[in-house]
Amino acid sequence: MNRLSIIKIGGNIIDDEAKLAAFLDAFAAVRGKKILVHGGGKLATKIADELGIRQQLVDGRRITDAATLKIVTMVYAGTINKNIVAQLQARGCNAIGLTGADGNAILAHKRGTAAIDYGYVGDVDAVDAPFLTSLLEQDKVLVFAPITHDGKGQLLNTNADTIAQEIARGLSSTFETSLIYSFEKSGVLMNAEDESSVIGRINPAYYQELKQQQVIFAGMIPKLDNAFAALKSGVQKVIIGRAEELSQLLAGQSGTTIVHD
Amino acid sequence: MNRLSIIKIGGNIIDDEAKLAAFLDAFAAVRGKKILVHGGGKLATKIADELGIRQQLVDGRRITDAATLKIVTMVYAGTINKNIVAQLQARGCNAIGLTGADGNAILAHKRGTAAIDYGYVGDVDAVDAPFLTSLLEQDKVLVFAPITHDGKGQLLNTNADTIAQEIARGLSSTFETSLIYSFEKSGVLMNAEDESSVIGRINPAYYQELKQQQVIFAGMIPKLDNAFAALKSGVQKVIIGRAEELSQLLAGQSGTTIVHD
Repeated sequence: MNRLSIIKIGGNIIDDEAKLAAFLDAFAAVRGKKILVHGGGKLATKIADELGIRQQLVDGRRITDAATLKIVTMVYAGTINKNIVAQLQARGCNAIGLTGADGNAILAHKRGTAAIDYGYVGDVDAVDAPFLTSLLEQDKVLVFAPITHDGKGQLLNTNADTIAQEIARGLSSTFETSLIYSFEKSGVLMNAEDESSVIGRINPAYYQELKQQQVIFAGMIPKLDNAFAALKSGVQKVIIGRAEELSQLLAGQSGTTIVHD
Repeated sequence: MNRLSIIKIGGNIIDDEAKLAAFLDAFAAVRGKKILVHGGGKLATKIADELGIRQQLVDGRRITDAATLKIVTMVYAGTINKNIVAQLQARGCNAIGLTGADGNAILAHKRGTAAIDYGYVGDVDAVDAPFLTSLLEQDKVLVFAPITHDGKGQLLNTNADTIAQEIARGLSSTFETSLIYSFEKSGVLMNAEDESSVIGRINPAYYQELKQQQVIFAGMIPKLDNAFAALKSGVQKVIIGRAEELSQLLAGQSGTTIVHD
């Protein structure tokens, strides 16, 4: 099977022009098939502020109302996605930018309204693996913005970690798939204050232990839950670490690797 | 050869939600392979105004400075393109949105600075016909935003009529290609004030005559020059008329058809 690397980058890289350029140098050098999934960064908030659109937060989570959806569609699928694509092209990387609506790549539904209505937020139903595979086999590099659609004309704001995981799940029977979640830390840390305390390897049993000891808490829990869900669905390995260390992450010399056992 | 329709729509359709929905109904019903090229509309100007970005005009032409390029990238490649794609998906049309940067579909260069610097405006150098053909052969419907790139990381604002013409030129040896320029009038008019005075058919000799008589002037001249250039490069026929009459245009029952002789 061909190797496929699916790499998710977050806002800390996107917001910093020099960091993004260095990341794209490293990404362009990654061998084999590859997919980049980018998050949003602070630009959407900045543009919303400038347009006088107030961000609604409930329990610290952004609510995607109609005005916010317009902003994230402009900024994620327009500004960020197309600039990354153009910069990858300049690096000899034949990138194509996609949302879930493009080619019906990722179909989702609006999250059910239980206690809170999160607005136009999508939960993923299906990834069109044959379509993505055909692009990868034409040596295209896919760049996903965190936007999906419901097949009824509605675009939906969708968590970029989830998009990366769902794509990995969809393609793991066709490719030997590695999923890399990059963020602002060196990996999963034993001590949140100490960047040198990276845990090299976590299996399910150790994960339970780390949660009980409250070494792993808050925002790391959904990230690791996603990672273990990806492994269960056939992804070869999941690596969590710093985008600035992409080549080391892929070589297993940096970050935290999430494994079956 | 398979039939391919390349249809360009302008701002008057994009700015009007009901007109756009009706157009997309008609577009979804077009048989054979198809490509939609959309222009900008007034939304970019509205967003620029709201963000306090002053539009520079020289001789009535918008100058694409760096701030304006950011706006058009957001609005054309983000808002407009992705909403059209999602709405086509809802109509059972498997659309994929593209700029020229995506898959290196359309390579351009920044227009040379003669008397006036138009800023980040692209003149097209090359269309990747095999890439576009492979998508069309996977039954994808292509939706182009009027943005290209220079292969060195720079996005470029590019005239949508020109994009439609260059794509038609690139694909006319593979498909029996019709190029439809839709705009706010019923076709090329004998009397600009009279919508019922549509000229049904124009060949090169008649075009010269109509220009000499000043029946055709101003903005219609570059549009018709583009049309004749497209015919010369192998496009089967070019039709100019109202987007609201798409099916009649394609059936030759409406609009002006530009022909070799």
